[in-house]
Amino acid sequence: MVRILEERGLPIAELVAFASPRSEGQRLPFRGDHVAVRTLTDGWYHGLDLALASAGAAVSRQALPPAASAGIVCIDNSSAFRMDPAVPLVIPEINPEALVGHPNLIANGNCTAITALMALAPLHRRFGLRSLVTSSYQSTSGIGQKGVRELLEQLEKLRGQEESLAGPDAGALPVGEVFGRTIAFNVLPFCERADLEGSGFTTEELKMGNEARKVLGIPDLPVVATAVRVPTLVGHAVSIYATFDAPAHAAEARRALSAFSGVRVVDDLADGSYPTPLAAAGTDDVLVGRIRNPAGDDRALALFACGDNLRKGAALNAVQIAELVVSKGLTAPSA
Amino acid sequence: MVRILEERGLPIAELVAFASPRSEGQRLPFRGDHVAVRTLTDGWYHGLDLALASAGAAVSRQALPPAASAGIVCIDNSSAFRMDPAVPLVIPEINPEALVGHPNLIANGNCTAITALMALAPLHRRFGLRSLVTSSYQSTSGIGQKGVRELLEQLEKLRGQEESLAGPDAGALPVGEVFGRTIAFNVLPFCERADLEGSGFTTEELKMGNEARKVLGIPDLPVVATAVRVPTLVGHAVSIYATFDAPAHAAEARRALSAFSGVRVVDDLADGSYPTPLAAAGTDDVLVGRIRNPAGDDRALALFACGDNLRKGAALNAVQIAELVVSKGLTAPSA
Repeated sequence: MVRILEERGLPIAELVAFASPRSEGQRLPFRGDHVAVRTLTDGWYHGLDLALASAGAAVSRQALPPAASAGIVCIDNSSAFRMDPAVPLVIPEINPEALVGHPNLIANGNCTAITALMALAPLHRRFGLRSLVTSSYQSTSGIGQKGVRELLEQLEKLRGQEESLAGPDAGALPVGEVFGRTIAFNVLPFCERADLEGSGFTTEELKMGNEARKVLGIPDLPVVATAVRVPTLVGHAVSIYATFDAPAHAAEARRALSAFSGVRVVDDLADGSYPTPLAAAGTDDVLVGRIRNPAGDDRALALFACGDNLRKGAALNAVQIAELVVSKGLTAPSA
Repeated sequence: MVRILEERGLPIAELVAFASPRSEGQRLPFRGDHVAVRTLTDGWYHGLDLALASAGAAVSRQALPPAASAGIVCIDNSSAFRMDPAVPLVIPEINPEALVGHPNLIANGNCTAITALMALAPLHRRFGLRSLVTSSYQSTSGIGQKGVRELLEQLEKLRGQEESLAGPDAGALPVGEVFGRTIAFNVLPFCERADLEGSGFTTEELKMGNEARKVLGIPDLPVVATAVRVPTLVGHAVSIYATFDAPAHAAEARRALSAFSGVRVVDDLADGSYPTPLAAAGTDDVLVGRIRNPAGDDRALALFACGDNLRKGAALNAVQIAELVVSKGLTAPSA
């Protein structure tokens, strides 16, 4: 988040950083200087104009409403307020208009949903999205540095004995706290947790549908998502099957995607050109490719989208929202 | 293949192994003895009853038809004859009846297709399959030992500098001959090669549809497949979205799957029970879980299937076909 603030042009007079007491006094490098981390206490927001929160739903639920009431524009990366009808859920390239009249609380989307929606928004505008099926390939950094660490530790433990994994000797497999299963050389069709209402979906999967409906403004859009963790470090991918109201030829879809800010089309199969999570890592654009119509069905498209889950999937999108708020005068900076 | 022949009861009087001249004289351990590998020459099949071929489509196209004409039952793992209307494509649990009157040439299916079809066959019987969307998670062993080697070499090269992968410094990424891209910490939505007719699908993806239609006997089944290589060693997974003619409640689907030989249901989300490729590696069953209906749609199911691509996805299925041929007297062994 701080690195992205450094890269971009938001006119910051003063940057203040808050965290739990554990991080008190840590120093974050920022524009050649350092910012000392303070402990988040009641009234933390006094004197600030705008807050970017990335502390999880529980902290956000407690810390942000008082700040918003006091006039601070709060942009929240957690899932705490995303489905609140009063809170806009914004991807700046897609629905900036949702910011008008915001209640000083603005939600940033789920990392996989943002990646998929960047690819779907221009197609929806052109052809009218009717239904959506997605399967994801989500990196370990999606649950933070501890996810990356667990994958690398397991790879280290298995080093030199990888071939034994093909055997039925499952007792020897390393299992960690973060994933509860071996993530090295494995894929886990289980992200976050089971939906408590017993739908059979995970909460991560339900976000894809809920956020697609809200961001695209299609309240009754049918969405079936499967969320899968894969042994990658950075970059989320999502395999998309979508149906449309109007004929959606692949060539036209490619043009609509190319013209959309924040998307880069990488799609020439004969040339070996297709998107991958590693190619998306470190970049701001969502890469989209493998765009094709099923045989005999011009109202359906299959495609594959990859985004940097730490950038467009999280920090970058939040900073872009902040930029929009400031540039459109949707807040009244007191500084 | 030889290990699976050892494990199972096929009454083998003599095992003979053929390969290219490069492997001439290599010795394969078999039932406490050794079998010397011979070079494949014209007339290789004289004196044999049954041949299991796993040498690629080009070799199969040349070597098998003369053997079949001479009365040897040839079971082929390659894609050479799968779509030949005269050649049965058989998964023994699903369509053993296709073997009746076979022309001494029998095709074994694609590894990912077999995994998906084992999960779909009992659902099709019960509810009537209407359409299919799949996204795969295919291991590096799907293209042989060289695929596994390339992944492990890349992991070794990147060891200790994995964190730098998040940066835009793509020049430093290891690229190998097998995948043509970095497969370590990446996923590649490109398996085998581009369909030459420009459909936008890969040949690997078209197999899913072609084989589903042939094995399940649904000539007009619409199938949209996305085939993706992931950095795993053994075990293919496939995320399936299927629609049906009749209501297909998840609980009923679970019962139909549980009753089907060769499938093991692993599906209790509240309990953290779901299938993974590593759990399937080394086992004969295809593991199926994450079985659920989309909200408000009881004629659709999402599910996740994992199989050992070297066993059920290849050698085991071929040996099961051989067992069926022998036990049903569908050949006349001369030995």
